[in-house]
Amino acid sequence: MRPLIEDAIADLVCSRSMVIADLGCSSGPNALALASIAVDAFRRRCLALRRPPPPAELCVLLNDLPDNDFATVVKSLVEFRRNNGDEPVLLTGVVPGSFYGRLFAAESLHLVCSSNSLHWLSEQAPEDLKMNGIPAYDVDANVRRERRAVVVGAYARQFRKDFMAFLKMRAVELVPGGRMVLSLAGRRSVDLASELTHAWESTAMTLSDMVTMGVIDKEKFETFYMPIYGPSDEEIRQIIQEEGSFLIREMQVPELTSGAYSALITSARVASMLRAAFEPIIVQHFGPTGCDGEEGIMDEFVRTAERRWSLEGSLQDELAQNPRGVLLVSLEKKPS
Amino acid sequence: MRPLIEDAIADLVCSRSMVIADLGCSSGPNALALASIAVDAFRRRCLALRRPPPPAELCVLLNDLPDNDFATVVKSLVEFRRNNGDEPVLLTGVVPGSFYGRLFAAESLHLVCSSNSLHWLSEQAPEDLKMNGIPAYDVDANVRRERRAVVVGAYARQFRKDFMAFLKMRAVELVPGGRMVLSLAGRRSVDLASELTHAWESTAMTLSDMVTMGVIDKEKFETFYMPIYGPSDEEIRQIIQEEGSFLIREMQVPELTSGAYSALITSARVASMLRAAFEPIIVQHFGPTGCDGEEGIMDEFVRTAERRWSLEGSLQDELAQNPRGVLLVSLEKKPS
Repeated sequence: MRPLIEDAIADLVCSRSMVIADLGCSSGPNALALASIAVDAFRRRCLALRRPPPPAELCVLLNDLPDNDFATVVKSLVEFRRNNGDEPVLLTGVVPGSFYGRLFAAESLHLVCSSNSLHWLSEQAPEDLKMNGIPAYDVDANVRRERRAVVVGAYARQFRKDFMAFLKMRAVELVPGGRMVLSLAGRRSVDLASELTHAWESTAMTLSDMVTMGVIDKEKFETFYMPIYGPSDEEIRQIIQEEGSFLIREMQVPELTSGAYSALITSARVASMLRAAFEPIIVQHFGPTGCDGEEGIMDEFVRTAERRWSLEGSLQDELAQNPRGVLLVSLEKKPS
Repeated sequence: MRPLIEDAIADLVCSRSMVIADLGCSSGPNALALASIAVDAFRRRCLALRRPPPPAELCVLLNDLPDNDFATVVKSLVEFRRNNGDEPVLLTGVVPGSFYGRLFAAESLHLVCSSNSLHWLSEQAPEDLKMNGIPAYDVDANVRRERRAVVVGAYARQFRKDFMAFLKMRAVELVPGGRMVLSLAGRRSVDLASELTHAWESTAMTLSDMVTMGVIDKEKFETFYMPIYGPSDEEIRQIIQEEGSFLIREMQVPELTSGAYSALITSARVASMLRAAFEPIIVQHFGPTGCDGEEGIMDEFVRTAERRWSLEGSLQDELAQNPRGVLLVSLEKKPS
């Protein structure tokens, strides 16, 4: 995201004061990654413009859901301010809440960034599926095939509704001409029904294997939804145009994971990536152990996934069918 | 503070959006007390003015030092938003840091509140005393009397410097015409050298008794400072006028604690109030136990204080010499 953020900052440095928000900051070592990029870009831009004292001001606001570890974020912020010296004057704050609702005062932001968060949906499950009791991933392959379009459509509609809400809220909060730089999980394909489209599908396949093995309960699995959707660049573009508040300054379509690097991807690596991403919601839904109450469910998950990919080339095949990647988009709020 | 905050809100409701900051919010049940008053006042004012939709916006920002329990504050904020419905649109955030430095973007605040925090100094000890190795409270009564003017002067200068910095920072952060409503520990007397002037003096007397009894170390006591100063209304007024950015809209001088209620004040109650206020800094400096390493230092502190006040009327006499109370001040930022 760095070049897009740098471009946005270069465009925006016009007044003495700039407010930047990172939405979905998390709390680990990456919580201040975007903020650091922004501060560096701002400082360099100010130097290039040879601004005279008094020094310019940069206000960085970090957002995530209220159950994020904000105590740690606050400690990181204090260190961040200490390491950044006196110029520009650096102001920081934390804004807990869902970014699908209002978070900041109207026309108070100059730049919104969000990395690796917007593919998370606002609801635990797409409303249409939950209401009609349709499982996201049926263990029976025939039923699954029949319902594929329904499931994919429900996920796509939920994403559209959420992303539209996100754009509307930020359109209120950004100043006219304000910028957004977003990255999220996406995919290249536009044909929703044709292939392994979901970012959560590898995980669902593994859990389905665990149902067959009797490790997890079938009925429990049928009410399990992963609230995540990776849109195509075309979907994103349509929603942005329909919402109407933003110009698309730049959009980068995803790199396929099945490119030159796919040989380097090992089943152990992918299994532990999936574990890292989904452990909280899997354990929350199924409990920490399998049906027998003895084996840790996530250990069993990793073992099952690796077994599935133990055949030479099977992981690469699966990834090739599921052309995921990171979608990058830079937006500008239209003048009011 | 309620009437002063309500007056300020009534003056300020002119645009669709208002930003309010509470400086030194703490984290207990009172963390949102000022915010609640402000939201109520804002809502009533909007109703009185019969504002049409779209609903007005109120942004509440809470500040305290970075070691405050912000995880709890964030949880309170979520509940606060939930309990306050959709009108006005309520936006909330947390801004960790010292209020003697910059915290918010320039001209971004409409109302600043601070309750019961501004008597805490920025430094652990007044610079002049620490530099010259002068104890805040000498165990020897003669030495103490000789140095009284020096100690009192050093505290007063430190407070002046801190409060001046506070005003300068807020003057940058408030919009022209923006308001501040502050409450802090104060006292009526203007003659700094004449009497028991410090809010910490009762505590120092008790600790001094504990030195005489051999419970705490004399040398340790001589490097112990309580970073707190209760100014008179006259001192506050002078600093505000000298700084020059604010008009005094209202100032309320303290009620004497030696009034009609003093008969209700018991030594046990005062001792545990002092314990609640000063336990963290006493334990940090002296450790959790006394010199013998067995008795808890704060239990010993309470016992010693109660013993000192066991003589009929001695507590009332001490309070009468130390006419403390809450200083309330409402300010308006001058037009630029």
